[in-house]
Amino acid sequence: MSIEQFSAKGRLADTGEGITGDELQLAARNHGIPLEALRYEVTPPGLHYVLVHYDIPAANAATWRLTVDGCVEQPLSFGLTELRAMGRETVRVTLECAGNGRASLQPRPISQPWVMEAVGTAEWTGVPLADLLRAAGIRKDAIDVVFTGADHGFERGVEQDYQRGLSVSEALDAGAVVAWEMNGAPLPPQHGYPLRLVMPGWYGMASVKWLRSIELIDHEFTGFQNAVAYRFRQKSDEIGVAVTRIEPRALLIPPGYPDFMSRHRFVPAGSVTLQGRAWSGWAPIDRVEVSVDAGVRWHDAKLDAAGNDLSWRGFSYDWDARPGEHVLTVRAHDESGRLQPIEAPWNRGGFANNSAQRITVFVTNPA
Amino acid sequence: MSIEQFSAKGRLADTGEGITGDELQLAARNHGIPLEALRYEVTPPGLHYVLVHYDIPAANAATWRLTVDGCVEQPLSFGLTELRAMGRETVRVTLECAGNGRASLQPRPISQPWVMEAVGTAEWTGVPLADLLRAAGIRKDAIDVVFTGADHGFERGVEQDYQRGLSVSEALDAGAVVAWEMNGAPLPPQHGYPLRLVMPGWYGMASVKWLRSIELIDHEFTGFQNAVAYRFRQKSDEIGVAVTRIEPRALLIPPGYPDFMSRHRFVPAGSVTLQGRAWSGWAPIDRVEVSVDAGVRWHDAKLDAAGNDLSWRGFSYDWDARPGEHVLTVRAHDESGRLQPIEAPWNRGGFANNSAQRITVFVTNPA
Repeated sequence: MSIEQFSAKGRLADTGEGITGDELQLAARNHGIPLEALRYEVTPPGLHYVLVHYDIPAANAATWRLTVDGCVEQPLSFGLTELRAMGRETVRVTLECAGNGRASLQPRPISQPWVMEAVGTAEWTGVPLADLLRAAGIRKDAIDVVFTGADHGFERGVEQDYQRGLSVSEALDAGAVVAWEMNGAPLPPQHGYPLRLVMPGWYGMASVKWLRSIELIDHEFTGFQNAVAYRFRQKSDEIGVAVTRIEPRALLIPPGYPDFMSRHRFVPAGSVTLQGRAWSGWAPIDRVEVSVDAGVRWHDAKLDAAGNDLSWRGFSYDWDARPGEHVLTVRAHDESGRLQPIEAPWNRGGFANNSAQRITVFVTNPA
Repeated sequence: MSIEQFSAKGRLADTGEGITGDELQLAARNHGIPLEALRYEVTPPGLHYVLVHYDIPAANAATWRLTVDGCVEQPLSFGLTELRAMGRETVRVTLECAGNGRASLQPRPISQPWVMEAVGTAEWTGVPLADLLRAAGIRKDAIDVVFTGADHGFERGVEQDYQRGLSVSEALDAGAVVAWEMNGAPLPPQHGYPLRLVMPGWYGMASVKWLRSIELIDHEFTGFQNAVAYRFRQKSDEIGVAVTRIEPRALLIPPGYPDFMSRHRFVPAGSVTLQGRAWSGWAPIDRVEVSVDAGVRWHDAKLDAAGNDLSWRGFSYDWDARPGEHVLTVRAHDESGRLQPIEAPWNRGGFANNSAQRITVFVTNPA
């Protein structure tokens, strides 16, 4: 067998092809948020979605170093203790995987097969990225900032450390934090222990985990995860458009109780307060609509108080549940004018798919 | 649609049928241990496998009650504070899902589609179950002990709270603990917050989460999770044999680094120390064998010091990795004389499948 066979190019599933063994292996090790855990405004760490490209690295916080170098006035190197002395800020951030919703696409891109649950909100504590960059001194020739993690592997035939680039202005202006705590505790291994980038408003691929290097370069970064992966494409041979901020999406907490296997819901007839959360990486959420008849009619949900930054916003809708079968669905609007579509347009990587959730509910007669 | 269609009977996949959407939904919300996390002797909570039958219940520790009643001299009811006053013991326990390995079976039972990663080891702190039962006073007519959780749903057409029964002697003698801490912190929601049973040596279905009731009854418990689910059967209409203790199994930490999609491994040529963990719910592990040629020849691994109880035991094997393709595999023996099979016999529920792990490794030439 050749390296090309071990680490093959991406492909689309054939018509009618079920989820493959390779996709299942990823689904078994990565995980989404169980939808009932949308009840927590801040997601407990083990319920927050996790996507690890390669392996979770073994890491020792006592010896961990983060370097800031390249096109800077003064290269810097930090241990954890030194980094903590640079400042401390806590941001509440909703992160979503760029591949969320991929598994429902037709045809289906073969990759991590998310259904709709690759999201979570946490409070990340660390030092503002802008403070670190300014401490090093950004030279005039700096174009991009490259973040390198300690996770290493092959992807579509290319051996690599996980690396992502941002422009200098994106790195300075988006409120990014180099974080060592999640929800007030050291980062769990799967969330980047001991150090990670958190990039508010952007899909998760930008928030490089196990962060060990920040390098400013005098040209555009063309590494795999910016130039090959994470691009909107219709055909495999086009250059495509970079995936950046999170498209608006709302998810309902499935009401009532589930069937183990189908996850269909049973709800006793009567008044039911439907609840959920909505988010967008472009602008705050300003409207959420709920439909209890599969999208025929839409009703404005009541919004919870707006939070800070771009973290999700709670909503609720009082439903008079009558016996029979119903399909619940929901869509989010944000202040930039973006409206979540019922069915998002297809792209070859299955990125930024924010098609509306549908929950099949069986309302049972009163006892 | 009828309740029967919403909550259908179990079935086997058709020949060649890929993983279904229903299975994928379960795989996206439940998760296994990423195999590299076998490096931790005690699994961090977000990396420990999780299987939730219905929804994670909303729980309030301040008002939570646990009752002990039925065939007892003195029915008891505890809040968390009262329960903590009954005693405190910490046990290190390896838990594995009874359905681990199910997804690789031919034909494949349609249920939670584990590959091989549904395992984890934690330190659980609580009060010994035997102390609670003795405090209530076990009456002579008590036959079984029924544990009821707060999670509620349908399963194969049957509405239920999750419930499992043990015989009085199993409940007294297996070292079970009613736990409120995992690894020194309150239980995470998905691991049973605020209270759960932990049954050392048994597959995870016995360790009832979100525990709210312990009832002693004067007859054999015939609830769904004992009498219908979790039984070894060849045919759907036979009574079958109860699934109880964990069969021996060893897992290697995959060496080198992975391909993102296939999870095949790349290893630079040279000396490689293969490491892993092995466990059995029947008796301590006393031997682990490793093969680096797909099971043609077997070599004894070096065992780490034995731990307490029935928690997993580390092992290692020094491998001289030569360039080319290799298939690594491993098997465990325990002191009861049980040997992990290369291919475990099929049963209709896909339970207790301990077929040997196989890792495909591509050893690359020295640079």
